[in-house]
Amino acid sequence: MSKYNVTFPGGLRLTVAAGTTLKEIMNKAGINFDFPCGGRGRCGKCKVLLTAGAGEPTAEDRKALSAEELAQGIRLACMTKVQSDLQVEFLSEKNIRHQILLSGLDRKARVEPHLSKRYLEVDKATVEDMRTGWQRIKDGLAAQGSDSKADTARVAVIRSVPDLLRFAKHKITAVLYKNEIRGLEPDNTTEKLLGMAFDIGTTTIAGYLMDLYTGKELAVTSTLNPQTQFGADVISRITHVNTHPEGLKDLHRVVTEAVNDLLGEAVKQAGVSRHDVYAVAVVGNTCMHHLFLGINPRDVALAPYVPVITEPLVIDPWDVRLDMNPAGKVFVLPNIAGFVGADTVGVLLATELDNSEEVKLVVDIGTNGEMALGNKDRILACSTAAGPAFEGAQITCGMRGASGAIDHVHFTGDVKYSVIGDVEPLGICGSALLDTVAGLLETGLIDSRGRFKKTEEITHPAGRKLANRLITYNGAPAFLLAGGEAGSAPIVVTQKDIRELQLAKGAIAAGIRILIRNYGLKVEDVTEVLLAGAFGNYLNPHSACAIGLIPPELEGRIKMVGNAAGAGCKLALLSTGEYRRAAAVARRVEFVELGSDPSFINTFASSMLFPEVE
Amino acid sequence: MSKYNVTFPGGLRLTVAAGTTLKEIMNKAGINFDFPCGGRGRCGKCKVLLTAGAGEPTAEDRKALSAEELAQGIRLACMTKVQSDLQVEFLSEKNIRHQILLSGLDRKARVEPHLSKRYLEVDKATVEDMRTGWQRIKDGLAAQGSDSKADTARVAVIRSVPDLLRFAKHKITAVLYKNEIRGLEPDNTTEKLLGMAFDIGTTTIAGYLMDLYTGKELAVTSTLNPQTQFGADVISRITHVNTHPEGLKDLHRVVTEAVNDLLGEAVKQAGVSRHDVYAVAVVGNTCMHHLFLGINPRDVALAPYVPVITEPLVIDPWDVRLDMNPAGKVFVLPNIAGFVGADTVGVLLATELDNSEEVKLVVDIGTNGEMALGNKDRILACSTAAGPAFEGAQITCGMRGASGAIDHVHFTGDVKYSVIGDVEPLGICGSALLDTVAGLLETGLIDSRGRFKKTEEITHPAGRKLANRLITYNGAPAFLLAGGEAGSAPIVVTQKDIRELQLAKGAIAAGIRILIRNYGLKVEDVTEVLLAGAFGNYLNPHSACAIGLIPPELEGRIKMVGNAAGAGCKLALLSTGEYRRAAAVARRVEFVELGSDPSFINTFASSMLFPEVE
Repeated sequence: MSKYNVTFPGGLRLTVAAGTTLKEIMNKAGINFDFPCGGRGRCGKCKVLLTAGAGEPTAEDRKALSAEELAQGIRLACMTKVQSDLQVEFLSEKNIRHQILLSGLDRKARVEPHLSKRYLEVDKATVEDMRTGWQRIKDGLAAQGSDSKADTARVAVIRSVPDLLRFAKHKITAVLYKNEIRGLEPDNTTEKLLGMAFDIGTTTIAGYLMDLYTGKELAVTSTLNPQTQFGADVISRITHVNTHPEGLKDLHRVVTEAVNDLLGEAVKQAGVSRHDVYAVAVVGNTCMHHLFLGINPRDVALAPYVPVITEPLVIDPWDVRLDMNPAGKVFVLPNIAGFVGADTVGVLLATELDNSEEVKLVVDIGTNGEMALGNKDRILACSTAAGPAFEGAQITCGMRGASGAIDHVHFTGDVKYSVIGDVEPLGICGSALLDTVAGLLETGLIDSRGRFKKTEEITHPAGRKLANRLITYNGAPAFLLAGGEAGSAPIVVTQKDIRELQLAKGAIAAGIRILIRNYGLKVEDVTEVLLAGAFGNYLNPHSACAIGLIPPELEGRIKMVGNAAGAGCKLALLSTGEYRRAAAVARRVEFVELGSDPSFINTFASSMLFPEVE
Repeated sequence: MSKYNVTFPGGLRLTVAAGTTLKEIMNKAGINFDFPCGGRGRCGKCKVLLTAGAGEPTAEDRKALSAEELAQGIRLACMTKVQSDLQVEFLSEKNIRHQILLSGLDRKARVEPHLSKRYLEVDKATVEDMRTGWQRIKDGLAAQGSDSKADTARVAVIRSVPDLLRFAKHKITAVLYKNEIRGLEPDNTTEKLLGMAFDIGTTTIAGYLMDLYTGKELAVTSTLNPQTQFGADVISRITHVNTHPEGLKDLHRVVTEAVNDLLGEAVKQAGVSRHDVYAVAVVGNTCMHHLFLGINPRDVALAPYVPVITEPLVIDPWDVRLDMNPAGKVFVLPNIAGFVGADTVGVLLATELDNSEEVKLVVDIGTNGEMALGNKDRILACSTAAGPAFEGAQITCGMRGASGAIDHVHFTGDVKYSVIGDVEPLGICGSALLDTVAGLLETGLIDSRGRFKKTEEITHPAGRKLANRLITYNGAPAFLLAGGEAGSAPIVVTQKDIRELQLAKGAIAAGIRILIRNYGLKVEDVTEVLLAGAFGNYLNPHSACAIGLIPPELEGRIKMVGNAAGAGCKLALLSTGEYRRAAAVARRVEFVELGSDPSFINTFASSMLFPEVE
């Protein structure tokens, strides 16, 4: 059966069997095109312009379209059967691009890949036409109306021309980035254009393999950041850099190796090749950003905590030894400040704070808490060291949110809890600590200063029922959450644990209060609180408000937005417009340095208190 | 004694002792500035604008300059003694740049280096000024009114920022190319900005180390092109590429190694370092061009002899493994056609054909002869395989123009000759072959078809005196030039040698005739013949015209221009304007493919004849 090439806007070119309808092709390719009547040729809404290959109009075309439209080559996509090579243009801007849909976010964007591909058939030189091979390629691209004037290339690409024209029989695909011919490949490879978004967290690295034409997610991979072997947090890693001659190289090498491994795993999952990956986008906190790029993050750890660079960077794969298509590019999102990094920019991009009419608060809680408050007119951001309590570290029975961790606790008459993996509880993770302390507070077992009350001080009826769980553990008061009977080790929350949580939540709460104050607002003016990140997605909003981590006034306005940093990274990968927007947002954000705010100490101290329970 | 910094336009910054006059500094730095009265403060012509550091006017200043000029900071350069840091601006465009003077050519150009340097003192970050290191560098450059918006850099350069700011105590020099910060160096290195021009010939590679501020030549080096081990001419080298799996790599490697060696030798001669070399410019024929870049030149040897690329290329040093400052750039001049390469573009640039009102002919003779004819309105060029006769190869007693070679022959009653190195003659080189055949023709010992006359046919009186030198050599007629007595081997020119010369000169002469004809001119319309290249510089113009290599009508109009390809390469190295002009010239030249000219065979055949002697 005959096969024909159908070319869509953006350079997507598909080879299809004769007789296939444009509707079938678009559906298959994931092009988000509207067929209101379901493709039965009745509504006349699925008009496309065939700039090449328009055949005789169908009866439906004649009914739905004007003579002028027909003469221009306009047809109904649902009725057009491919009988020759076709060049398809969309008539409505809305139909031109695929849409990116992000789960958990009401967020759409057009797919506008950073790189594009063009298929060319290049004639041989003759005495009559002595243009060079390179000139023919450039002319061929110009004839296809390539968006940009593609006229430069690295020597390596020019070196590939003679053999390519000879052995690929003059059929080649050009990979374009702006005005640069980034690569030339034998045959028609225009269908393959993948990218990968990486969210490089201090603890975890996540990678998302995406189709750069359709915006579809093809695979998700993640791994522990292998830099943890050199230190659990950013400060200890910077210390490693400062104290080991090869420290920077070590940290740079292991993170790029991990990214390469994730890329390999993702392409394996999706059944594609590393060479199909032409674009990579990266977010991470400022320290992760610097280490990924091999930039010494020393100054990030020294007052006044200034990064080496904040600008977005577009770099070559070999600059960070990424094993992807060498014609590709790596897009590194911008930082805002030493402790408000590209990951926060990703969060802002995903949550569209810069587009909001109303003032919203975005909070991303980890070892550090990053907060941003604002709307389309103004955005303030700050960061504060929350300490490790939210991650279960330095808590008596604390552990990560892994199998065996109590993750949620409910004070419903008695104490009930859920355990990750439905196994015997081994300890508690950050979200359970939050729930427990909220419960202790609401049942009056601790006071607003976080002190365990003595049995005789407990007046709340629910609290009195639980008073028997107030025990002495290693000589100090504690709350028995689980275990302790029949030889099983007790799982407790101690006075010290409560102090740790107070420090952590106090820092975040103080940051939020200072942002709101600096913005000139009252707490009630914040219309929405968007909780980003793994912990933010896991915590119980009621508990967060009960202990005052989030201002209690905003409890009804909390929304979980998941890994918004990763979502923002995907947006920047898939869309040049979103990438540019990331740069604009990063430039616009006003960084509030809490350490130099004269009110910080007092605000922090008062924020360590818990809200009074009525 | 105090030292101060004086900064001139173009970023040249000199540190000088207090009390030095601007005139002394400019003379020392080679700045071509006019002091009509010799620097005695009398003529008032050497005005400069001091945008920073202008002190009290001198008595001479007050006499020569208006109150308004004095207020603006205008002073006389000859009278201004340095008493503080100074920023000097020239008031007349003509004085702004150094001039390039090329020996053998009436050719001047402004020095306008491709790269520039800027010295910066970068403040540390504070809580009040949290700009990143990278931002400070960019802002510092912008504050100096850097010509271009320097805002991009490779990751490697950004990686150097933290240590540079720390260990260089915030004193750094930026190396700029267009909008890219190519490199950052500790301390003030603005005084060092060297470049090297390379003329890569099939046989010889020449290198010229130049000061990019002053245009002065600091060293000249040359070497045999090591590619000769793989073949003496371009065709045999292309055959090597086609027949050996590593052939292309071999040829690329040895030429880049030779260029690196020449660079090393030149910097040693000049007492500088490889790292002071920031720009390299390269010319060569199309095959040398491709091999230098590592591009397969296969198609250059196959009809229709089309290069892979003709465009000028600006590449990174590591792309061709050049051991120079990695912040530098390599500027490769454009080609015109498969056998009219970047070397011819260099010749055209040096000879300014594109600026000439009158039509001139440029001839560069080697194994191939390249010819260009034209003026500012139109330039035609062609190339023809002259064969090896001009280089003494395939000639009975032929040899290269080395020690022992007869290089010139005079038929002055008897035959007199000169020998290179003043030693006993070992053979003859191309120029002597030309002289000998011209003499044989003018004394009537050979006819216009190149045939040795029989003794009885010789009628010219001078010829009759030399008839005894007509001998039989290996059974064929020959002319005894030297030796033959007392056991020394005879040095002869044989009938076959004359035929070889006829082939060689016929090809060149045919090319010239076809160019003139295609241009719609007569021979007499050519106002000047510029002979370029080593052979062109060495031959006797009278002999060249006598044998019809150059049309005899043009004998009085011949001018030797030396290694014009190398001179053009120097121009392109020193001046962005000249480099751009090279690209424009290459695009403008109309290539005449002799092989496809229907009249070529006949023209070639008739051009093999010698002019009739009256």
